[in-house]
Formats: sequence, C-alpha cells, structure tokens
Amino acid sequence: MAPQLDGYFKQVDDMSDAFIERLRQAIAIPSISSEAARRPDVVRMGHWLADELNKLGAQAELRPLGKQQGTDLDLPPVVLARYGSDKNKRTILVYGHYDVQPAEKEDGWETEPFELTVKEDGRMLGRGSTDDKGPVLGWLNAIEAHKAAGIEFPVNLLMCFEGMEEYGSDGLDDLINAEAKKYFADADAVCISDNYWLGTERPCLTYGLRGCNYYSVEVSGPGADLHSGVFGGTAQEPMTDLVRILGSLVDTDGKIQIPGIAEQVAPLTAEEDGLYDGISFTMETLYESLGSKTTIFDDKKKTLMARWRNPSLSIHGVEGAFSAPGAKTVIPAKVIGKFSIRTVPNMEIEKTNECVAKYVEDVFKKLGSKNTMKVYPQHCGNWWVASPKHWNFSAAAKATERVWGVQPDFTREGGSIPVTLTFEQATGKNVLLLPMGSSTDGAHSINEKLDKRNYIEGIKLLGAYLHYVAEEPQN
Amino acid sequence: MAPQLDGYFKQVDDMSDAFIERLRQAIAIPSISSEAARRPDVVRMGHWLADELNKLGAQAELRPLGKQQGTDLDLPPVVLARYGSDKNKRTILVYGHYDVQPAEKEDGWETEPFELTVKEDGRMLGRGSTDDKGPVLGWLNAIEAHKAAGIEFPVNLLMCFEGMEEYGSDGLDDLINAEAKKYFADADAVCISDNYWLGTERPCLTYGLRGCNYYSVEVSGPGADLHSGVFGGTAQEPMTDLVRILGSLVDTDGKIQIPGIAEQVAPLTAEEDGLYDGISFTMETLYESLGSKTTIFDDKKKTLMARWRNPSLSIHGVEGAFSAPGAKTVIPAKVIGKFSIRTVPNMEIEKTNECVAKYVEDVFKKLGSKNTMKVYPQHCGNWWVASPKHWNFSAAAKATERVWGVQPDFTREGGSIPVTLTFEQATGKNVLLLPMGSSTDGAHSINEKLDKRNYIEGIKLLGAYLHYVAEEPQN
Repeated sequence: MAPQLDGYFKQVDDMSDAFIERLRQAIAIPSISSEAARRPDVVRMGHWLADELNKLGAQAELRPLGKQQGTDLDLPPVVLARYGSDKNKRTILVYGHYDVQPAEKEDGWETEPFELTVKEDGRMLGRGSTDDKGPVLGWLNAIEAHKAAGIEFPVNLLMCFEGMEEYGSDGLDDLINAEAKKYFADADAVCISDNYWLGTERPCLTYGLRGCNYYSVEVSGPGADLHSGVFGGTAQEPMTDLVRILGSLVDTDGKIQIPGIAEQVAPLTAEEDGLYDGISFTMETLYESLGSKTTIFDDKKKTLMARWRNPSLSIHGVEGAFSAPGAKTVIPAKVIGKFSIRTVPNMEIEKTNECVAKYVEDVFKKLGSKNTMKVYPQHCGNWWVASPKHWNFSAAAKATERVWGVQPDFTREGGSIPVTLTFEQATGKNVLLLPMGSSTDGAHSINEKLDKRNYIEGIKLLGAYLHYVAEEPQN
Repeated sequence: MAPQLDGYFKQVDDMSDAFIERLRQAIAIPSISSEAARRPDVVRMGHWLADELNKLGAQAELRPLGKQQGTDLDLPPVVLARYGSDKNKRTILVYGHYDVQPAEKEDGWETEPFELTVKEDGRMLGRGSTDDKGPVLGWLNAIEAHKAAGIEFPVNLLMCFEGMEEYGSDGLDDLINAEAKKYFADADAVCISDNYWLGTERPCLTYGLRGCNYYSVEVSGPGADLHSGVFGGTAQEPMTDLVRILGSLVDTDGKIQIPGIAEQVAPLTAEEDGLYDGISFTMETLYESLGSKTTIFDDKKKTLMARWRNPSLSIHGVEGAFSAPGAKTVIPAKVIGKFSIRTVPNMEIEKTNECVAKYVEDVFKKLGSKNTMKVYPQHCGNWWVASPKHWNFSAAAKATERVWGVQPDFTREGGSIPVTLTFEQATGKNVLLLPMGSSTDGAHSINEKLDKRNYIEGIKLLGAYLHYVAEEPQN
C-alpha cells in the first residue's frame, strides 16, 4: 500500500521559504575545510548544524577527531545525531558534509559566493548550495515538515555529518569503524546524498562507483639537474625514459596496454547489456560538459560503459621536470610520472598493482637504460557496487516516481566516493546514493547552484524515501 | 721571435695580493641581474668597473640600454672602454660580464657568497669569482702590471663588459650591431673569457659551440581540466597524445628519430677524427661531474663527439600537467611539451624546424586523435665554429704554452654562448674563447670559486696572449 504523503508534500511546499532561509544561513558560514584560516568557520558551521538538529528534537553531539594530519590544527568535529529510537521502526543512517570548497567573488562568481542568491530562473547560487549543504539540510527540513504537519516520522534516523570531506575526510574512517557496532549499530541501511543526476531532467539512484589505483613511476640517473648544452648527447636522460614508459601505457582511444587488466573485468551479462539504452543521457550533454567533441566513442552506450563498468588509465603529469611557461634547457635528474587506473568489478587491487609493476618494469628493461626506475602505487581505493534490488533502492525508486513522476535511472559513476565503501564495509548494510542536485550544479566550480525545484522536491523525496523504506518488505 | 715576458710575469706575481684585493672589491657588490631589487647593485658594479678602468688610464664610458623588456626597470649600462689607439698596433676587442647569478648563504654555501674567501688550498670562493668577474678583472690587472713594470702595452684594447649576461643579455645584440662599424670598427679580432677548461689540469682554447633550437608541442582538447573519475575512458586525453609524441623523438641512447637531422651533420674528416684522442678528458672526470655512470657511451672519443659535433635532443618537461608532489586525479585539458635540439655544422635552423614539424605532425596523425596539436620553435640560436688556425688562436696557443708549459687542447663546447656568434657576425672578425677557470669552478652553483693559480696565471696568460697577438703574422 502506497504511503499517505500528500500532507507531507503540502507542508514542504508551505514551508519552502523557511527551508530556503535555513539554506541561506548555512551558506553564510564560509566553512572551507582546506584553508587553515577558515577552520573556526568550519567549526562554527558544525555547532550551528548541531544546534538546528537539537532544536528539531534530535539528539546531536559533536565528536572531536583530534589533530589534522601533520599539523597542530584541530579537525572540525563530526556531527552525530539520532532522531527517534522506536524499536519497531527501521533505522536509516544518512551521511553528508557541512564543509565546502574554497570560493572568492574574484574567481568569476556572478554573485557573492557566501550569500545565497535566488535567481528568477530558480537557480539558488552559493558555495555549498548543492555540495553538500542543501542535501544535508534536506534531512532537517524533512524532520521539521513532519513535525509541523503532525505526521509521524516513519523511521529512526541516524545522521553523520562531517566537516572535512573537501579535504580528504581526515579522521572519518576511524570514527565510522569505531562506531559501526556502537552509535551506528541499529542502522538497517545507509543513504548518502552527495552526488548528482546524470543530466538535468531525470533523477537517478546510484549503485556503483569505480575505484582508483594511483601510481608513481620514478626515473633517476644523474646526481643533479644538468645543462642540456653540456650533457645533451652524453647522458642517458631520465625524461627520455619516462615519456617512453608513459607512452606505452594506453592508446589514444583509451585502450589500456597493460596485460592482465582487461582480463579482470567482469563479463557483460545480458541483463546489464539491456540497462544502458534506457538511461537518460545524450552525447550532446556530454560534449557540453566536456567543452569539446574529443570523445573516444560517438555513442551513448559505449560511453556509459566506458565511464561506469570499464577501467580507464589517465596520465596526470610529471614531477621534477620543467613545468613553467617559457624555455629552460634543463635535463632533469629525477622525474616522477603520475598516472592512475580507474578500477571496476572484478578487478583486485593487489593483482592490478602486480600487472602494472610487471609491465612497466618490462618496458623499462627493453629500453636498455642505465638509469634507475621505480614504479609504486601512491594510494589505492576499491570500486563499489551495491545491489539495486535491495529494499533500500526499491524504496528510493518508488519515492522518486511518486515525487518526480518518472522512474529513476539506475546509474553508476566513474569517480570514487570513498566513504561509501567505508560505510558498507563497517556496517555490512546496503548503501544507496540518492542525489538531490543535477549535473549542471557545478559543485566545485564558480557559480555553484542548486535549483529551487531540486531543493524543494528533493526534501519531499528524502521524506518519501523514508516512508517507502518503512513499508518495503525485507529482501 | 718570442716576446720578452719575464718582467711582466714577475710584476704580476709581485702584485698578486693587489689583484686579489681588486677581485674582493668586485665580489662584494652583489650584482645579481635576475633580481629587480638588486638592480642598483648591478648599476653600482658597472660604475665601479668604469672607475677602475679610468684610473688605469683607459677611456671608459657607460652606455645605457633602455628599459628591460616588459618592465619599467632600466637595464644596467654596458661598460665600453678603450686602452690605447696606436694605429701601428693590432686592436683586440674583449668581452665579459660584470653581473652574477643569485646566491644566498642558506643555499648551502660554506662561506658568505659575497665575501671573497681565499682557502689554504688556493680556492677563492665567492659568487662571480670565476663567472665572470675574475676574467674581466684579468684584463684590468694585465694593464696595471704593464704600467707598473714600465712595459709598453702590445696592442690597443677595446672592452665590452655587460651587466645582463645571466639574464638573457637583454639589449646587447642591438648595441653590438650598432657599434660594429663605430666603436668596434678597428677591432682585428675578438677574445671572450667566459668559459672553462674541459678538466682541471690542461688549459684549452675553444673554437666551436653548438646551437639550440627549442620547441613547444602543444596538445589540447577539452574546454577545461577534467576529473579522471568522471571523464576517464570518455575523453581522448591530450596528455596521452603528448607522451606518445615525446616518446617518439629520441631513444635511450640519444639517437634522434627525426628524419633529416642526422643527414645535415657535417661528415667527419680524417683531420677531425685525429683530434679527439689527444684531448685531456677522461670518463672518470665526466662521471664525477655527472654524479653517476649513466652515460650513453663508455669511451672518451664518442663522448666528446656527441657533445661537440653531433646534435642531441633533450626533453625538458611539460607545462599544463600536474607537476607537484602528491596525487591529483586531473585530466589536463592542454599540455605543452618542451624539447630542444642542440645543433651542429652544417645544420640549418629552418630546415631543422621543417623536419621537426613534419615528423611531429606525422606521429600525431598516426595516433588518430581528435585533439588539436601544434608544434613550433620557441627560439633558435645557431651553432658557431671558428678557424683555430687563425693568428688569434695561434697567439693564444703560444701564450698558453709559455705560461702553463703545455699545449692547450683545442676544444668545442656543447652549450651555446650566443654573444660569440653576434660578435663574429657583427664584426666579421675571428672570435676566440680563452678560458681562465677550470671545470670544477661551479659557475652557477653554490661555492663558486676560482683557483688562485688560475687567476694569477690567467692574468699572465691574457697579457702574454696580447704580446703574441702583436707578433703573429697575418693568416
């Protein structure tokens, strides 16, 4: 039986001005986690959030995380909160973050980045509007609308809001692992609202992320940088070896040349094969976000498969070589190439590292160089794929259809959101990514915005999701 | 008939303390041309030098060069000076520079860089000691010793000392070209003392330099830098194309892969072939200066030929890619690879540029990339080879044998000293490079030094060279 939601929806519409005002207050606090000088603002934002939660009747607490790695700076606290503890209800753990990316009007913003500005076309501009203050406040607004309408809250809600997401989530994994069987013990499923629709029209639920193995390949020879006039033709140059190694990794069409990578990729099932055609995604939108037509594939299906379910290899740059504008006749003594592989099911981190090491060592050996080469992973994060058939997803799908009038796309993403995997592994529960904003929100860019429609309908969606969660049968 | 030099030599020995004191005064002026804040010190150094010359009876003047390119900063003046104008004597034009590289004690100097420190082992440490204040003062000391000993100066001396050599010799070429038929009109030959012996024991005369064609290869595609999670596997990446282009230019053993380069190199004559074995140079010294044994060749002759008479190609770096320590998952939108070719007789600048452009365009075409590629020269400077049989060289060779007791090596250099070619082309006269310091002086490094022996014997050498110049028959 579909839950009764009309009263809740009407209440959200009635309170929309108040919800925008709450977002305005949050945007006004420049909680930039990457800038030490802004740390007091990040902490103030954590306190403001906890206060708002407590005012709504939740039990919020601020958990200190100790010092930021390598500094004397206190990390901003994690806000942990519980709303409801009825043993007869399901418990949903939600995650979000209250810190933001840096922003200055001078970067090219059309408005003051820390003053929420609602445009006539519905764009609500402000740093953090979509990433991630709007979605975080969505949960608070859902609570408030239920209270105001006198509707019983359908689940127990556990909340975990951090203040360091834009700067590496320092300290968060330890807290999640420590609290998995304590504060988070009764969570039945996890919901994270910190990603985006694939386009601007069709909502989506996200059930997969690629992982990332990041490598350094270091070539060194001479004792110090050399002058190319004096030593050109005399010394074997590390940079010559490095570009030949980097040039052997992947071809122009993205085909990884390292044996043993493609072999690990999960075969395409008939079921998955049928998924892509229905996804709301066009090459035109991709060309727009890319700013060019320099894509590897010209069709949607191959492009989505390349982004979601196939590995890719990108060469990011070279450390130690000349990198400034102009001309410098240096022979760099030691150069470090950086590249990474986006990983997918069923690739294994260790096996992938072994394939990379063997291949790069073989290529280097064939060069016949007297220089010294080392290749090693800098960091590795695993891919994540959840079951989209779990009740957590079917509840979200029904809520989406109810609020937006369309079936959501079931999507995966090319990038990683490491906390997703941490929650899944620590709690052992299904994790759902339930985005509020759309692909054009410009999360880390100038003129970051959340459309008013996505915010208000998003609040309805989060609440509706919790009602469907309460009714979905156990898988 | 060998000139009478004993009186001059004795006078130089007797005055050696005064000559070291003069160098001490010069070193004390931190005439760093690359630092705008030090410009007054560079100008002060020019005035000090002109004053010293005038006190010795030379006619010195300070020539303004206008503003430094792209700034409001006055360039330091060029010191032009004449000593003697006897129409029955040969006139020798000498060049040097009175500016220096930056230096801070904190860089790792064992002494204060702008306080000349004479060590017990004879090293005279100080920024500019060997590059190029010692050699410049060598000419002044030679004049003073002649005057003190009452020996007639054997030639007319024209001097051109600049103050921007370490920062691109801004404005100098124009002055040389403008004065070639005026101030420098009666020059019979040119002598530049601004390079170094090949080793530490055997003096040398230098008659050749390689040129340098410096290239940029620019690959662009997306409108802005991309996130490799979102776009990895979707976009053709400019960095992938660039490393494949750079990897095609030269092999580990320095063999340039571009057709049409090797074909331009002057064939080895039997005469040249016999030159290399006698040169005072060992692989051990090379390993020491290289700080490793990662040479292309293991024997002296091939190494010297690779440095002096064969072209080389070095890859200097990449602009626009990630170049810092750590990890960044960026797909750079536009990357510019930098490489240069050291050129030799009989390579032509334009022809070489055409070969490079054609080859790089062919390689890029074969990649089948949708990205955009441009390859273009940033700057090109020609190689230079003088005739070592000219009386200018034979005079210097005889003077070297007289002062040092050995025949000098006739050497070329791998790097470029662009002013050499400018003087040759503007005056139409033979140019000789007559070094004072040795290979271990560390011109641009910490602990720059000039050995006391090289300074004092060098003053004798410069004077003796002028006496032999006066006696050498016309070629």
